[in-house]
Amino acid sequence: MAGRFKLKAQLYRGEDVAIGPGKADLLEAIAETGSISAATRALGMSYRRGWLLVEVMNRSWKEPLVETVVGGRSGTSLTDLGRQVLADYRALETELAALSNGAAAKRLEALLAED
Amino acid sequence: MAGRFKLKAQLYRGEDVAIGPGKADLLEAIAETGSISAATRALGMSYRRGWLLVEVMNRSWKEPLVETVVGGRSGTSLTDLGRQVLADYRALETELAALSNGAAAKRLEALLAED
Repeated sequence: MAGRFKLKAQLYRGEDVAIGPGKADLLEAIAETGSISAATRALGMSYRRGWLLVEVMNRSWKEPLVETVVGGRSGTSLTDLGRQVLADYRALETELAALSNGAAAKRLEALLAED
Repeated sequence: MAGRFKLKAQLYRGEDVAIGPGKADLLEAIAETGSISAATRALGMSYRRGWLLVEVMNRSWKEPLVETVVGGRSGTSLTDLGRQVLADYRALETELAALSNGAAAKRLEALLAED
């Protein structure tokens, strides 16, 4: 049985998680679907939970990450800052994933019980 | 208000977490105190929970990480493998912590709302 590393990064601002795996996935889904309700449906998350996560994100950063334009070409999308935070978080996740191929990680995996 | 990164590594074997932050702290406390009950007291954890974590660890690796010698100089201690797993896990945590000083992490921190 192969071992499997789970590596997680969260950035806190006070008690709030400003960005973490769940919020990053939500940002990505909002960018793809153009709405919070479609994004939460795609993630199997309640609308209320998605809305709360957006609220926390929008108060945690210098500017909101998600904006809703009403009237005309209405829709919900990421702001420039939202796209930047998402990109930097994914870059950090890529660095994290690389650690699971590092020396310490490989030594640990080799010591797990065989199946 | 400063941002604070929380970076976590868990190594799964099937459904079990073979090693993670809580189990590593428990191993360290057992090494320091020489008993599961003293270790769990020091960590504010129930004895039952500590015992269960040890049981999961002892079945997840090629050999047990924790052993109890009964009679004579009785006591609970880490095996050679237990010390090695703890050392490798702490090395992995040090690599993780270094990521919070990396370029992506620093960019993210700089974008958090001021207080």
